[in-house]
Amino acid sequence: MDQPTAIILLSCPDARGIVASISNFIFSHNGNILHSAQYTAQPENILFMRIEWDLDGFEIPREEIKNAFTPLAEKFRMKWNLHFSDYIPKIAIFVSRHVYCFYDLIVRHQMGEFKVEIPLVISNHLDLKPVATQFGLNYRYYPITSENKAEQEEKEIEELKKHNIDLIILARYMQILSGKFVNEYPNHIINIHHSFLPAFAGGKPYNQAYNRGVKIIGATSHYVTAKLDDGPIITQDVVEITHRDSVDNMILKGNDLERTVLAKAIRLHLANKILVYGSKTIVFD
Amino acid sequence: MDQPTAIILLSCPDARGIVASISNFIFSHNGNILHSAQYTAQPENILFMRIEWDLDGFEIPREEIKNAFTPLAEKFRMKWNLHFSDYIPKIAIFVSRHVYCFYDLIVRHQMGEFKVEIPLVISNHLDLKPVATQFGLNYRYYPITSENKAEQEEKEIEELKKHNIDLIILARYMQILSGKFVNEYPNHIINIHHSFLPAFAGGKPYNQAYNRGVKIIGATSHYVTAKLDDGPIITQDVVEITHRDSVDNMILKGNDLERTVLAKAIRLHLANKILVYGSKTIVFD
Amino acid sequence: MDQPTAIILLSCPDARGIVASISNFIFSHNGNILHSAQYTAQPENILFMRIEWDLDGFEIPREEIKNAFTPLAEKFRMKWNLHFSDYIPKIAIFVSRHVYCFYDLIVRHQMGEFKVEIPLVISNHLDLKPVATQFGLNYRYYPITSENKAEQEEKEIEELKKHNIDLIILARYMQILSGKFVNEYPNHIINIHHSFLPAFAGGKPYNQAYNRGVKIIGATSHYVTAKLDDGPIITQDVVEITHRDSVDNMILKGNDLERTVLAKAIRLHLANKILVYGSKTIVFD
Amino acid sequence: MDQPTAIILLSCPDARGIVASISNFIFSHNGNILHSAQYTAQPENILFMRIEWDLDGFEIPREEIKNAFTPLAEKFRMKWNLHFSDYIPKIAIFVSRHVYCFYDLIVRHQMGEFKVEIPLVISNHLDLKPVATQFGLNYRYYPITSENKAEQEEKEIEELKKHNIDLIILARYMQILSGKFVNEYPNHIINIHHSFLPAFAGGKPYNQAYNRGVKIIGATSHYVTAKLDDGPIITQDVVEITHRDSVDNMILKGNDLERTVLAKAIRLHLANKILVYGSKTIVFD
Repeated sequence: MDQPTAIILLSCPDARGIVASISNFIFSHNGNILHSAQYTAQPENILFMRIEWDLDGFEIPREEIKNAFTPLAEKFRMKWNLHFSDYIPKIAIFVSRHVYCFYDLIVRHQMGEFKVEIPLVISNHLDLKPVATQFGLNYRYYPITSENKAEQEEKEIEELKKHNIDLIILARYMQILSGKFVNEYPNHIINIHHSFLPAFAGGKPYNQAYNRGVKIIGATSHYVTAKLDDGPIITQDVVEITHRDSVDNMILKGNDLERTVLAKAIRLHLANKILVYGSKTIVFD
Repeated sequence: MDQPTAIILLSCPDARGIVASISNFIFSHNGNILHSAQYTAQPENILFMRIEWDLDGFEIPREEIKNAFTPLAEKFRMKWNLHFSDYIPKIAIFVSRHVYCFYDLIVRHQMGEFKVEIPLVISNHLDLKPVATQFGLNYRYYPITSENKAEQEEKEIEELKKHNIDLIILARYMQILSGKFVNEYPNHIINIHHSFLPAFAGGKPYNQAYNRGVKIIGATSHYVTAKLDDGPIITQDVVEITHRDSVDNMILKGNDLERTVLAKAIRLHLANKILVYGSKTIVFD
Repeated sequence: MDQPTAIILLSCPDARGIVASISNFIFSHNGNILHSAQYTAQPENILFMRIEWDLDGFEIPREEIKNAFTPLAEKFRMKWNLHFSDYIPKIAIFVSRHVYCFYDLIVRHQMGEFKVEIPLVISNHLDLKPVATQFGLNYRYYPITSENKAEQEEKEIEELKKHNIDLIILARYMQILSGKFVNEYPNHIINIHHSFLPAFAGGKPYNQAYNRGVKIIGATSHYVTAKLDDGPIITQDVVEITHRDSVDNMILKGNDLERTVLAKAIRLHLANKILVYGSKTIVFD
Repeated sequence: MDQPTAIILLSCPDARGIVASISNFIFSHNGNILHSAQYTAQPENILFMRIEWDLDGFEIPREEIKNAFTPLAEKFRMKWNLHFSDYIPKIAIFVSRHVYCFYDLIVRHQMGEFKVEIPLVISNHLDLKPVATQFGLNYRYYPITSENKAEQEEKEIEELKKHNIDLIILARYMQILSGKFVNEYPNHIINIHHSFLPAFAGGKPYNQAYNRGVKIIGATSHYVTAKLDDGPIITQDVVEITHRDSVDNMILKGNDLERTVLAKAIRLHLANKILVYGSKTIVFD
């Protein structure tokens, strides 16, 4: 588990010989494949693959793997990424006033569940600064108004770049990010929405659910795209409710869901197990 | 379990003394309360109640209970219904071409799971007539076109009345019932929709779910109202899917859900455990 | 929601007139019943009931309700308890080395989810003292050996009494409490066990589950009795696993379950919604 | 979906080059890999793999694939099986008196959900003969006593052999099969047990569950081994219950679970997606 591995995530038009070529590439340089999974989307006939191999004994130095693999990738017209399991990603958490997801993330981080650094917490409010301080986190305050939004987002991006942020978590951040912002981190911003999307997109989903009289409520983690609550879904979960559940009760039950659904999505992303394809995710769990 | 009981389902503006008055009514006539449940909807302050008592030893003959209870009901301005547990309801099943829900219902009936009679199966197609015949059911064929719809519905209603139908089950019936038809059986037509409503209302929900890339799919049973897929929800359930699930696979998984969700709704209705309130149900399970 | 209420939890041999007598008691003193639920266990014919009413306008002062209700309780040979919704219970949390449940409880408390005081954290290890300190909690260290166990438990009980503890939470406390200890707090010690009991009682349930090759794992909260992992179950939940889940992965998934299952049990207890009957619980949710 | 494919299920000690060798074998004969999944059990370091490829265009005739693959299999010391997706397996269903699983299986078969033949239904009772007759199935009656058990099992085996049965389904068959019988069909007898094993093995699991006061009940499908309710688990599912659920209610809820859990296990087996390893299954879903 602790030995460093290399992971390639790829997609390309399906063709004979792709699996053979990739596994030969690894085997011919004395690599040991630990995990390999593939999926072909139909009717588009596009292959998605995740392959992970042990770096121990692999004869290509890790800094040269990218170049070595490129001819194969070009031959099959792959979109691909190379990851190393021992890389420690840098995460920025965006929060507003709700504390429960924020607490959950930092407690998990504290317990070593996420192998990441959190150099930055960004908020449009000051409410959660004491919690950040309690856990020694760097809290930056960017109040947003309709007038200053573009300007503030630029400062946020600057700050994110400065800290080499790899992944942004919106832990109940109550501002809609602009398309411009989102395009800076495509498929690298994870949001948690408190409904089983596509039901109850937008504001106050628990109130919507209460008014509709549904018997289950849910939570959805997804990558953020320019369109609200419409990005590729990573994980979802639901919990049963009854007519006895007030909106407050639904919030209580739902908050528990949101925490675990968001944490699961983050774990999958950090393990390089997600490929995005159009409006969907391929999750190699 | 086999002893006959009386059940009152009621709703009224909440007020002091309702529970006391009702339980006194039963106790003062030597009735033994077996189940009693109440719920007060807020902020409307409306009381919903289900109370069930043993008819054995109860000093009011069952045909006089209605009259005896009426003064109390009027005092508290109740909407209410009286049911007897040994009444055998008459059910009509509406089907089109999908057989799985139809099979499920008649097999359950065959096994004695539903204490009902099924004097009538109505369809706009002939496809399932052999199955009805195999189980000795009366299958009536009413093909529907845009021209003859009103006329055919009238004939169906006539047939339903002739057989004293208490409850209509739409077991994947692929025609939208007119408002006129629905008003003949308010809160007495149960439909199964193959999505977790309000997500994916309308046609081809599994295709919609596939295209959206959700990670759970569901099924919803609800009372039919004039507005499509919008009636009060009775039961819902979901099942996890992954990117590997084709639409066909989703249908396979979903069909299993639909069957159990529909059967559960029917059981609740037959046990007189459901009160409808606006667009919602109160389910005293 | 914020108005103080009175709650009676009772059990007694079933008989005609119980519900009527109790609701009359409340109504005749101008009380407004907010919730009332009953259940009769068969074949024992024992009635369980929970009734909650508004103290506002109730004509018996709260300190006299107990006396006023006693004749009725004696008439029907009830076992019963009276609770007030605005009472703030005092909780002691027992921990060992696992931090995740402890963190979860104190974060929930911090967020106001539990309306309690936590005057005491007791542990047989020093590991979690820094976390207690971080949240300003009083951490008492009682190392346990086979020699000093009885003696240490006595000191713990003394400390619990000193702080008027109402409820003890074993948040992954890795010592078995003696029968003597348990008898001091019957049905007032809640444990979380990391399996769906009765499967995998005892030590290392995730390893047991891994070795057996089950496809679901679970968590169980229960009241502690003298017999290990055998007390009345309050709540359970499960999560699916596959052959790909290592024991470590199962622990990760399971820990999320344990937290929510334990929190739910505590909420139910604090809301006075649980009656214990033999080895079972009646949960009026 | 309808094109015939070849599937190899294999296990062997893990080693460098296995995936490369197998994918080369397929590619070098112009095969197109449709699905490939592998899993390495730790710490035993055993590789499990399922690989499926299109027979269309594959240059080795299907009757020669086995011989062609053997050298590779021997090199890596594989245990392996070759399957073809267009093979129609022959299934025998064993029943006793409970009809619900039997009905479910034959209705699914009727609807084309299982691509199998059912040449044989075997029972130790005559109760379900009319149902078999209704669906045109061959029903053989072998009453079992402690005296004639060995003898009757021999006759059953003879009958099974005569019909070239590939898979046996115990659809609530209430006799324990002898070790001798089981050894004739290792990992080819699927049972449904009405609890979440290992909880409540043996008789009357719903009564056991009721008495223990659990809050969830379950169902488990597993391959039959000589030891009762102890074989490798294929699928499990659970449903929530409350104190209000009588044993009869639990049976009603549980029967629904049993049907879907059993059907799912059969689907996985028929799709050649299950590898058995010791007391566990590897399910490549």
